Amino acid sequence: MTTEPPLLLALDFTGTFAFALNGALTAVRAARLDIVGVVALGMITALGGGILRDVLIDSVPPAAFRDWRYLVLAAGGGLVAFALSQWLHRLEVPINVLDAIGLSTFAVIGASKALGAGLGIGPAIILGAITGVGGGTIRDTLVRRIPSVLRSDLYAIPALIGAAVTVGAIRADLYGVPAALAAVAACFTVRMIGVHFGLQAPAPPGRRD
Amino acid sequence: MTTEPPLLLALDFTGTFAFALNGALTAVRAARLDIVGVVALGMITALGGGILRDVLIDSVPPAAFRDWRYLVLAAGGGLVAFALSQWLHRLEVPINVLDAIGLSTFAVIGASKALGAGLGIGPAIILGAITGVGGGTIRDTLVRRIPSVLRSDLYAIPALIGAAVTVGAIRADLYGVPAALAAVAACFTVRMIGVHFGLQAPAPPGRRD
Amino acid sequence: MTTEPPLLLALDFTGTFAFALNGALTAVRAARLDIVGVVALGMITALGGGILRDVLIDSVPPAAFRDWRYLVLAAGGGLVAFALSQWLHRLEVPINVLDAIGLSTFAVIGASKALGAGLGIGPAIILGAITGVGGGTIRDTLVRRIPSVLRSDLYAIPALIGAAVTVGAIRADLYGVPAALAAVAACFTVRMIGVHFGLQAPAPPGRRD
Repeated sequence: MTTEPPLLLALDFTGTFAFALNGALTAVRAARLDIVGVVALGMITALGGGILRDVLIDSVPPAAFRDWRYLVLAAGGGLVAFALSQWLHRLEVPINVLDAIGLSTFAVIGASKALGAGLGIGPAIILGAITGVGGGTIRDTLVRRIPSVLRSDLYAIPALIGAAVTVGAIRADLYGVPAALAAVAACFTVRMIGVHFGLQAPAPPGRRD
Repeated sequence: MTTEPPLLLALDFTGTFAFALNGALTAVRAARLDIVGVVALGMITALGGGILRDVLIDSVPPAAFRDWRYLVLAAGGGLVAFALSQWLHRLEVPINVLDAIGLSTFAVIGASKALGAGLGIGPAIILGAITGVGGGTIRDTLVRRIPSVLRSDLYAIPALIGAAVTVGAIRADLYGVPAALAAVAACFTVRMIGVHFGLQAPAPPGRRD
Repeated sequence: MTTEPPLLLALDFTGTFAFALNGALTAVRAARLDIVGVVALGMITALGGGILRDVLIDSVPPAAFRDWRYLVLAAGGGLVAFALSQWLHRLEVPINVLDAIGLSTFAVIGASKALGAGLGIGPAIILGAITGVGGGTIRDTLVRRIPSVLRSDLYAIPALIGAAVTVGAIRADLYGVPAALAAVAACFTVRMIGVHFGLQAPAPPGRRD
């Protein structure tokens, strides 16, 4: 089991469920899949980033396999998406909000765990972002899409910001629930501003769009 | 070296060779590859699922790198497929049977190793299935196909059944060679019934086929 | 930090930067990416092979996360490629040479680390080659290309040769900076001969080209 404080844990569970739901819906849209594919891709989206992180900081078996609640929430999100995909496609706004909560919480918890495993500032920030974006990247690769985090939207950048605020607070000895929530809020706000205004990260100079 | 009883070990070796052969043939059909690509994809198909499992239960270096017989069988299967691909394509039925033996043995041994590493029931069943389907999934992704396990056929479901029977037998203190063979037989039978009757896992409701 | 002798370390750093540069340029050409995608793919190309190796020999956190110089060089290479991609595309020859230095050094250091972690001869040679070709393979998969190492050019074969010379020298108790440089030179020479003459590894018999 985990030692996160209850509020962070609740956000983490919300994020896991939202990532599984959103990941499975994206998979349904992108490829012709059966129930195994939809649920598996939902679970991979929800758990893949954390598993990557845990393997890289030598915290195996990964939390996703040690705490049954992650597995149940991820499978549940995938099954709900499978059953209700026709109806859920209309709920773009709430799903985007839940997904941003997941991204933010995963980046903050991931950065904090990476620092706790003895990594330096730079690697901890990167691992925080990997925790946030890793699951969706594996899913996109499996359904043969170029991962959207590599090509469009502000998605990795808010995750890097949330992870950096976390690492800064821990190094300044200010970390606790308020600082973690501030880091979550920083990532969430940048992400939602990006969604609302359709902001894009810069493209290579000279590319014809 | 491994501690599996001889009969299970023989099935495991058969499965490794069959996965390499079948994986390499699938790779030849799906993409223009050279000898490096064909043999590498055969080896990845045969060894990838077990390597994923070993990384996730912290049993590294993986068995595939500790017991030279796995590496030799996997490379041999890939080389045979490279040399005889034109001829082997006609042998669909025996290759399907050998592949089902591999799937079944991998799922059973994978689930048993995962439980032995201290995982709970759910994660052990999932890791058993990952052991069975992981190699083919990596191969499909590398040759830019949506992994067939996600979209068609009964492939993951028999693996989950074999892994569940294994975990059940171990938890009931009934595990041994007979129970392992029963679990292998359960997976094998469901898989071959699926192949014979062309059974499919359910698709999301409302999908136009 | 690492314990490689200064000359090997300098080659390793050169290779890391060159892989990041070349990896990011390939990514720019293959897909429409933003700055996050270009830099991330450059870093994955430069660090992915070594991270795979470190995970498989249980040397985690990987060197790429323990020695900040790898991360800085990889990010720097990706950023330079992002800023100067229009101009760098003309520099095919020097980039190919730098890339071959990276391939050679990575294969030699990878094989030596794998042997040091207790692996046998065969697995150490294979892990050396994986260190050399792994990063580019992950990058190609993420931008939805069939990894070039699987289909064309002499790329994996020189890496296997460099790794085999390394493993042979270590087992014969002849390893040191001269032997390591000889192994690097063997891989580099075969790779450059392959590039110069457009050599290809054999394709499966009967394939219509």
